[in-house]
Amino acid sequence: MIIVLKPDATEQDIQLVVERLEAHGYGADVSRGEERTLIGAIGARPEEKRRVADQLMRLPPVDEVVPILKDYKWVSAEYTTERSQIRVGEAVFGGEKIVVIAGPCTVESREQTLEAARVAKQGGATVLRGGAFKPRTRPYDFQGLGEEGLEILAEASEATGLPVVTEVMDARQVPLVHEKADMFQIGTRSMQNFDLLREVGQSDKPVLLKRGMSATIEEWLNAAEYVASSGNHNVVLCERGIRTFETKTRATLDLSSIPVLKDETHLPVIVDPSHAAGFFKWVPPLSLAAIGAGADGLIIEIHPHPDRALCDGPQALTPRRFLRLMQELAPLAQAIGRKL
Amino acid sequence: MIIVLKPDATEQDIQLVVERLEAHGYGADVSRGEERTLIGAIGARPEEKRRVADQLMRLPPVDEVVPILKDYKWVSAEYTTERSQIRVGEAVFGGEKIVVIAGPCTVESREQTLEAARVAKQGGATVLRGGAFKPRTRPYDFQGLGEEGLEILAEASEATGLPVVTEVMDARQVPLVHEKADMFQIGTRSMQNFDLLREVGQSDKPVLLKRGMSATIEEWLNAAEYVASSGNHNVVLCERGIRTFETKTRATLDLSSIPVLKDETHLPVIVDPSHAAGFFKWVPPLSLAAIGAGADGLIIEIHPHPDRALCDGPQALTPRRFLRLMQELAPLAQAIGRKL
Amino acid sequence: MIIVLKPDATEQDIQLVVERLEAHGYGADVSRGEERTLIGAIGARPEEKRRVADQLMRLPPVDEVVPILKDYKWVSAEYTTERSQIRVGEAVFGGEKIVVIAGPCTVESREQTLEAARVAKQGGATVLRGGAFKPRTRPYDFQGLGEEGLEILAEASEATGLPVVTEVMDARQVPLVHEKADMFQIGTRSMQNFDLLREVGQSDKPVLLKRGMSATIEEWLNAAEYVASSGNHNVVLCERGIRTFETKTRATLDLSSIPVLKDETHLPVIVDPSHAAGFFKWVPPLSLAAIGAGADGLIIEIHPHPDRALCDGPQALTPRRFLRLMQELAPLAQAIGRKL
Amino acid sequence: MIIVLKPDATEQDIQLVVERLEAHGYGADVSRGEERTLIGAIGARPEEKRRVADQLMRLPPVDEVVPILKDYKWVSAEYTTERSQIRVGEAVFGGEKIVVIAGPCTVESREQTLEAARVAKQGGATVLRGGAFKPRTRPYDFQGLGEEGLEILAEASEATGLPVVTEVMDARQVPLVHEKADMFQIGTRSMQNFDLLREVGQSDKPVLLKRGMSATIEEWLNAAEYVASSGNHNVVLCERGIRTFETKTRATLDLSSIPVLKDETHLPVIVDPSHAAGFFKWVPPLSLAAIGAGADGLIIEIHPHPDRALCDGPQALTPRRFLRLMQELAPLAQAIGRKL
Repeated sequence: MIIVLKPDATEQDIQLVVERLEAHGYGADVSRGEERTLIGAIGARPEEKRRVADQLMRLPPVDEVVPILKDYKWVSAEYTTERSQIRVGEAVFGGEKIVVIAGPCTVESREQTLEAARVAKQGGATVLRGGAFKPRTRPYDFQGLGEEGLEILAEASEATGLPVVTEVMDARQVPLVHEKADMFQIGTRSMQNFDLLREVGQSDKPVLLKRGMSATIEEWLNAAEYVASSGNHNVVLCERGIRTFETKTRATLDLSSIPVLKDETHLPVIVDPSHAAGFFKWVPPLSLAAIGAGADGLIIEIHPHPDRALCDGPQALTPRRFLRLMQELAPLAQAIGRKL
Repeated sequence: MIIVLKPDATEQDIQLVVERLEAHGYGADVSRGEERTLIGAIGARPEEKRRVADQLMRLPPVDEVVPILKDYKWVSAEYTTERSQIRVGEAVFGGEKIVVIAGPCTVESREQTLEAARVAKQGGATVLRGGAFKPRTRPYDFQGLGEEGLEILAEASEATGLPVVTEVMDARQVPLVHEKADMFQIGTRSMQNFDLLREVGQSDKPVLLKRGMSATIEEWLNAAEYVASSGNHNVVLCERGIRTFETKTRATLDLSSIPVLKDETHLPVIVDPSHAAGFFKWVPPLSLAAIGAGADGLIIEIHPHPDRALCDGPQALTPRRFLRLMQELAPLAQAIGRKL
Repeated sequence: MIIVLKPDATEQDIQLVVERLEAHGYGADVSRGEERTLIGAIGARPEEKRRVADQLMRLPPVDEVVPILKDYKWVSAEYTTERSQIRVGEAVFGGEKIVVIAGPCTVESREQTLEAARVAKQGGATVLRGGAFKPRTRPYDFQGLGEEGLEILAEASEATGLPVVTEVMDARQVPLVHEKADMFQIGTRSMQNFDLLREVGQSDKPVLLKRGMSATIEEWLNAAEYVASSGNHNVVLCERGIRTFETKTRATLDLSSIPVLKDETHLPVIVDPSHAAGFFKWVPPLSLAAIGAGADGLIIEIHPHPDRALCDGPQALTPRRFLRLMQELAPLAQAIGRKL
Repeated sequence: MIIVLKPDATEQDIQLVVERLEAHGYGADVSRGEERTLIGAIGARPEEKRRVADQLMRLPPVDEVVPILKDYKWVSAEYTTERSQIRVGEAVFGGEKIVVIAGPCTVESREQTLEAARVAKQGGATVLRGGAFKPRTRPYDFQGLGEEGLEILAEASEATGLPVVTEVMDARQVPLVHEKADMFQIGTRSMQNFDLLREVGQSDKPVLLKRGMSATIEEWLNAAEYVASSGNHNVVLCERGIRTFETKTRATLDLSSIPVLKDETHLPVIVDPSHAAGFFKWVPPLSLAAIGAGADGLIIEIHPHPDRALCDGPQALTPRRFLRLMQELAPLAQAIGRKL
């Protein structure tokens, strides 16, 4: 980090800051400019950097403390030159082949879920999604089938051969979800539920980490670092839209995050166009756009009868529309040198 | 809710929607305008409204479904004409007297916490704050003392007579925090941790519910409804700033939420100027502003030595500055007909 | 629009609102629900709707006024079933062929502009961009060459045969830009400069209307309606990113706006990935994404020597990178049934 | 500024950057840290800084360029130790006395304006506001009376002795507004209309510069710098709310900007609670909050008959409510050591 002193800082002030840095075990490189004096802190350890920066901010001669290095390490692109490949069943996130996860928003019944799973499989999806524990904005909305939902998902998985990803909302649900599913989903509202991140971080199953509704890319990567630094390096990031002033769509899908993340991290990144759009008609073009932006996969909501869905019906694709989308995606993937 | 049909909707289309509504147990009031036909759904039950609205959205002749009534009921201003008063020790949130909660961001040590508690008491605060479980953006930052921190808080409470509010981050921590503290704090990152909300909702101790970083006022009230509908009506709301594009301050303190909430709910509302500002110099003017806006209280971070703080040092008031602020607040409170 | 009355509204209150509506020339359709009475206003004219809605809001029994119909008409998808095609030189915005506009951010010199124009042409761009009047955040930044810049653009146009689009910032510049260029660009900061919109609306040259940095899609379409209702229907919309809390990219490119606009309007929509990304490396993937989302074109900044650019160097593509991008775009366009 | 090199930068790379800096006339201070090499640019001139920073960003070994100094100078708090006082008639912005500007949103008629002016005067306002040129989101909304409106304002000014502030939307309107009014208002949509800023910057009448809807504080101060660097130092800033995801209020009033600006600039700052709130009931508490935050004044919309207003009726105070607010403000101002 760099410490910027106030314009009127004296030599004594400079000395004060240098001594403070040295007391924290840092070297100090003083650069006396014409307008300001800057002090570079040499040897910053990520473990202490923020705290020391905050403390320095309170010294009277200090005007600003500018961080230079990233806070995360395991998930950083600098950690390894190889891109991570994360395997879930037959699917490999981060490989040449684009992974499509499909399934209903919520497990409502055995029939609905089995039917959706069959359609997912038929279209070429290689992972099945479905919610058993549902985070709903309103307490009076349908809250999911819980354990029964997990059983249904397991049955659908067995019937189709597709591995299952499903959301875990609370650390106490982790053992059960670990037993029944193949991949944990951390939802947008839980991206900074740090106890939960640590809990799935101690598990041996991969984690699909959705971006928090108002999380910066840096905060998102720090959330991934919680999982990774707890021992579990198998994290797949999922862009699902951020909250902005625009209300036409449910969230603003930030596809720029895809190329940014390709520079910042070796982890795979997929896109959830369904929750971002909030409306089925916009899901196909956003799916094509996501692949164009370089996403490693998609997670798409489908429902056999969207007009009878208990949750998020407006954004679910019908089986017919989903099958058509899969056909549209294939040539696009090929055009950019990937496969579906 | 009102269902807006597409411009080219036929009588048959109208019939389809009316039948659907009736199948859900609603009456339908058809209004044939010059440009559009509108259908009012009569007898909507909050429990189903959203789901039915979502399902109707998928009917081909439907252009839009406009919700009319609020989703929450216990916390709604329509539920009762009296404003709630919530007691924690001597403090009464929602009364004539403005409640000031003060204390350190984080319990770092016995000495630091006892000293901060003494200053809080001396200045006139009636509740002590302090973090034992800390939600930190980065895994390498200090994560709090946990149970030991709760013990220290309990000791500081005993020494000063001030009741304690402290954050609970995970449902598994609820019994312990219930035992050691007087009020649960739900932090900004947990506002939509619904399992946690239900857990404190089944407790008999009051809840300080901070606004989510990107929560609308409506979502915030729905989070309060989770707690209330689980049985615990003692919820105090806390505005702490929302995430916007402005980076000078840590968050954008949304003081407009105070008068809006006075219209929408009977629950008391307090303000956290420390986390919003992120910088100690701006905390006093924002505290005065909050009282001017009609807040029922403040929660303020103080630290005996901010330049040695392990967390959030830049925003902590020194004891001297805190005591001065309390003196500045008194005449302002009086000017608007309240007391400190 | 629909007027929602307060829960305690009496028959007399209903009468008051009905009379008010009738005085404004509307019919009123009263729907007495179990919890609320709704009054539908029949025969709303766009010219008065907002004003009447605002006035009704002030009547004591009124709780809310819900608008139903769009405010715009010429630009609305309901106005015509055909999609607009707008011709500038050889380029046709809104046709099967994707239009690429390329050129430097700013006209810095004759050499730089001619060289950029040659590269644009070589790569297959069919319109040349370049700024003569530059809106710069800081008064000390380079403000553009003005009229001299327009001359240089005209020369580059003649040399390459490419028509020119260039920004007009002030109504007084309209005649000059009309004389020298083929298409007006209205920049993001001018999207709600209504005098300027009316001025180009009275011209016979097409208008490239960039989205305001914090404009909703609805406000953007209303800005287009200003131009159209002044007589000029040749408006091309340009998504260029919106302002959000994310700071990695210069703006958050809202590609969801593309499919939304395809539903809302018949006007063509193109995308500016350069200003949104703010960094050259992210321009190619965002260009591919934009085409995937259904954009009718792209506007891309190129510079012969980005490390010597006077403005926005970080986001400019080098000639080599631009030529490669054009080769990458072609198969993608084909994959979705379009041409480059 | 500080140039951060990539981790693998060689001595040759360092040399390249140093030479580039020297070619631009800067000194270079190289600091070789354990993880990164930093290069401080010594002697940065504001006129070139941004451009040079942008150019350096394109050098391959450069990872990041961190600006250190502010871009503005006249308006900076470092420019002078005295706070600016700006006189308009009897009103002095930035003095001990809080300035209240009041009047209708829009000049609709002679009667309405004269009546509003009388009420403003009676309540103790010292400046009259009123719009003649109106920036309206929709082309079909009432666009103001233009020159006739200015005449009416001048008459109201003469009748009451109150000086007039009114919006100027286009540079061509400047001479007329200069002739008829006492202070220019630059509206939120025009904050970055740089030609307009330069035009009022060459005038001798004070300027009320509203914050752009999505302008950062830094961009706002740069807009003020446009006016000041054109010769007119009499700029009063006006916080009017920023655009966020919250929709209950028309904009999110950012009262934190008041204390931030007190640190950053010597210019006075006032607050517009009417446009931010969008609803009359919330205007009084936000007015009290603004004074608590340290604002130097308020600009408040009043209307003799809000339920007949042609523009922004929902947010206008009735005469009775305005007079009451003025009585509520007086003791609050006194409580913080100011006068009304």
